[in-house]
Amino acid sequence: MSESDPGFQAALEEAKQGAREGGIPIGACLVDKNGKVLGRGHNMRLQKGSAILHGEMSALESAGRLPASAYKGSTMYTTLSPCLMCTGACLLYEVSRVVLGENKTFLGGEDLLRSKGVEVINVGSKECERLMQTFSSEHPEDWNEDIGEDGK
Amino acid sequence: MSESDPGFQAALEEAKQGAREGGIPIGACLVDKNGKVLGRGHNMRLQKGSAILHGEMSALESAGRLPASAYKGSTMYTTLSPCLMCTGACLLYEVSRVVLGENKTFLGGEDLLRSKGVEVINVGSKECERLMQTFSSEHPEDWNEDIGEDGK
Repeated sequence: MSESDPGFQAALEEAKQGAREGGIPIGACLVDKNGKVLGRGHNMRLQKGSAILHGEMSALESAGRLPASAYKGSTMYTTLSPCLMCTGACLLYEVSRVVLGENKTFLGGEDLLRSKGVEVINVGSKECERLMQTFSSEHPEDWNEDIGEDGK
Repeated sequence: MSESDPGFQAALEEAKQGAREGGIPIGACLVDKNGKVLGRGHNMRLQKGSAILHGEMSALESAGRLPASAYKGSTMYTTLSPCLMCTGACLLYEVSRVVLGENKTFLGGEDLLRSKGVEVINVGSKECERLMQTFSSEHPEDWNEDIGEDGK
C-alpha cells in the first residue's frame, strides 16, 4: 500500500480537483474488495455551502444506495486523516480499511477506527500535506469551520 | 426535557413527513443554546437515493455552513438513537446535547457521545417506536441497508 495505489491516486486527484474549484483540497475514493471503485468525491463545503460533504462523505454519497454486503472488505482512500463524522460513516457501513494521505494537518478518528477492527494505513504523502498547508494558511477560517474549531 | 419540547416536536414532525413521503421515518432538529432552530430534516435515503442523509445529517446540512461557535450549547433532537455516522457528526461539531426519541428499534453511539461529554437524553417516545416498527416491518431491506446491516 503506497501513494501509487490506484485508489489513493483517485483520492488525490479528487483533492486536486477540489483545489482547482477553490475548495478545501481533500479527496476520497471508496474501492470494494475486488478493486472496483464504488464512489469518489471531494470536500464540497465551499462549493455547495455544505456542512456534511467532507471528502469521504462525498465518496459514500457518490456510491449511492448499496446493501451492507457491498462495503465488506472495502477500502476508503482519503487524502487526510478522517474526522469523527467520516470515521463514524466508515464504521456505520463497516468499511474494512482506511488508507489516508497524512495526519500532520489534522488527526481524526484513527484510534476509534482501530478499536473497532478497521485497518488504518497512513501513506505519509507530502503532496497531501502541501495541498492542505497551502489551503489552511490562505483560508484559515474556512479550514477551522470544516473541522468544527474556532481557530483561537 | 420531554416529548413536548418544541425541538423534539419538530424532529417528530420531520419523521412523520418522511413517512408521508414513503421514506424511512426518522427526523431531527438542531437547536442552538438560545432555542433558535438552526436546521431540521429527515432521512432521505429512499427519496434521494442517499447513503448519508440520515435525519441528523439532513438537519446539519439544512443548517448550512456555520462557525464552530454556533454549535456551542446546541441540542440535536432526533427521533431515533443516532448511528455512528450521526454520532460522529455531532462530535465533530461539538453539539452539547442529544435528545432522542427511542433506542429500542436501534441503539447507536450513545456511549461514545457520553464518553466525549455530550449529554444524552432518551425521552422514550412510543410514537417514535411505532413509526419505526411500522416501517421496518413493512420494508426490512430498506431499513437494514440504512444501518449497514445485512438483515440475516
